[in-house]
Amino acid sequence: MAVYTHVSAERIARLLGSYDVGTLVSAKGIAEGVENSNYLVETTENRFILTLYEKRVDAADLPFFLELLDHLAERGQPVPPAIADRSGRQIQTVEGRPACLIAFLPGVSPGEPTPAQAAATGAALGELHKALTDFDGQRPNTMTLPNWHSLAAECGGHLDDIAPGLGALVIEELAFLDANWPADLPRSAIHADLFPDNVLMLGNHVTGIIDFYFACTDIRAYDLAITHGAWCFADDGAGFDAELSESLIEGYQSAHPLLPEEARAMPVLSRGAALRFLLTRAWDWLNTPADALVTRKDPIAFRRRLEFYRAADPEIFLP
Amino acid sequence: MAVYTHVSAERIARLLGSYDVGTLVSAKGIAEGVENSNYLVETTENRFILTLYEKRVDAADLPFFLELLDHLAERGQPVPPAIADRSGRQIQTVEGRPACLIAFLPGVSPGEPTPAQAAATGAALGELHKALTDFDGQRPNTMTLPNWHSLAAECGGHLDDIAPGLGALVIEELAFLDANWPADLPRSAIHADLFPDNVLMLGNHVTGIIDFYFACTDIRAYDLAITHGAWCFADDGAGFDAELSESLIEGYQSAHPLLPEEARAMPVLSRGAALRFLLTRAWDWLNTPADALVTRKDPIAFRRRLEFYRAADPEIFLP
Repeated sequence: MAVYTHVSAERIARLLGSYDVGTLVSAKGIAEGVENSNYLVETTENRFILTLYEKRVDAADLPFFLELLDHLAERGQPVPPAIADRSGRQIQTVEGRPACLIAFLPGVSPGEPTPAQAAATGAALGELHKALTDFDGQRPNTMTLPNWHSLAAECGGHLDDIAPGLGALVIEELAFLDANWPADLPRSAIHADLFPDNVLMLGNHVTGIIDFYFACTDIRAYDLAITHGAWCFADDGAGFDAELSESLIEGYQSAHPLLPEEARAMPVLSRGAALRFLLTRAWDWLNTPADALVTRKDPIAFRRRLEFYRAADPEIFLP
Repeated sequence: MAVYTHVSAERIARLLGSYDVGTLVSAKGIAEGVENSNYLVETTENRFILTLYEKRVDAADLPFFLELLDHLAERGQPVPPAIADRSGRQIQTVEGRPACLIAFLPGVSPGEPTPAQAAATGAALGELHKALTDFDGQRPNTMTLPNWHSLAAECGGHLDDIAPGLGALVIEELAFLDANWPADLPRSAIHADLFPDNVLMLGNHVTGIIDFYFACTDIRAYDLAITHGAWCFADDGAGFDAELSESLIEGYQSAHPLLPEEARAMPVLSRGAALRFLLTRAWDWLNTPADALVTRKDPIAFRRRLEFYRAADPEIFLP
């Protein structure tokens, strides 16, 4: 969460010159999102986010992300589309990196979500899925069951350096998921990373869903499982919050009812989602110097969620 | 240049509740300024910068900085005063740190200043000095000749690790400055860090002078010497730009003519300014891990300036 690439005011002013967006009034590097460089740019006409894509986003995936955002924005979803320049181009090159000028959305990410905010987010995710039923773009999920095996193998014995017993838990869970991961649930483009950080709200109203850079084609209900793990636990994963959980799921159902087979799969999908974040965080933990620019997120917060889901009553997903 | 302390949206909303500034619409952590944490905060009424003061700013100095900004803002200078809450308080405590809500100023910092921008900045500095003639606040400069001796002693033999011969140059220069540093020039509150980063402009118009956290009481013309070193060299200090230099000094003179004794002292003041940044950068270079959050700035850029000033014709300061 830092600005990795410096872009001068002159370069930003020149970039804006190829768009119909007014002239530069202010530009501030903002510390936000995955490992990209972001500037909050104000012009005489409007505000924008200028994003330079750093190593974590594959430039070849950008057309998928931008089509997805255009598709959703055209259907009235609160997502920030990339602006096209006068020649119709959305992707530019700035300081050698692919870059997009993106609509600015108001709102702030809830730090301590309330049930009303969880309900609104569930409903917003349901609306998103509804709006994606006729979206044709495809991007494989590069962070699914086979990748979890690879990540676990790369972490290997070091998982126990993070916490004793973590290696055995991961092996056991992978075996369970290999045997039980659902094969024939409806698939769709999904956000795949809908943490509170990626939702902008004013009060209880969702004003923005942002950071689609993990979006991919996968089991649709898995998106709700990820969102459930991201929203319904307090105290760094230690405390399951039944009220947030009920609100999130009721909100989702109100906009886009789960099919019976989706609802039945929620316990295993949630275990998969918890393991996915446990493993990516563990890998980052083991491979990121403690004093690096990127803050390491604690993998243990997702071990706690995984342990909760392993023991949970499936009824929690059926309010 | 990062956000060191995370402040939740809820905490910012609660803080705004004690001010008459509207309610929270957006808050983005921005990567800016010295080692403080800054948020660009938008409310229903206006935009602000929320600054949390981290270790580099001594809380005991804040009243001086805020009085200085109030004094300048009252006199129409383009500086961002701290906003007072309903009870009149400018300094709050947020996440355990002293914090201020500060007026937002439009404009961008020039990456490659033009002569017209240097002239405008010189004039803005002259206006600032004029507006400070009746300012009573006092803060000793903690980065002046005796401190340069201490810094040089702390760096010791490691100066030659940065570049061969650097240690000898510093010793020689300190001896010269001990013998020649002016004792009886007019003193004033000065900005003391007026790099292009700290000037906001729209075109050739100065819209903001920011980052007063090195402001102190010292030789007034030394402020122009610092600004000269900061503005008039291209290529990381290698290339003196006579046009920028003339423009900056003419701009300053147009607003606040140098006294003859000030003009005569500019060569030695400029050598002192170059040595000050050479030494603080060298100290940071030797004491900051290469992969730390803070970007280390190259001390050699100021060795080049120092060598230029040692050889320069004093006429360059008398356009």
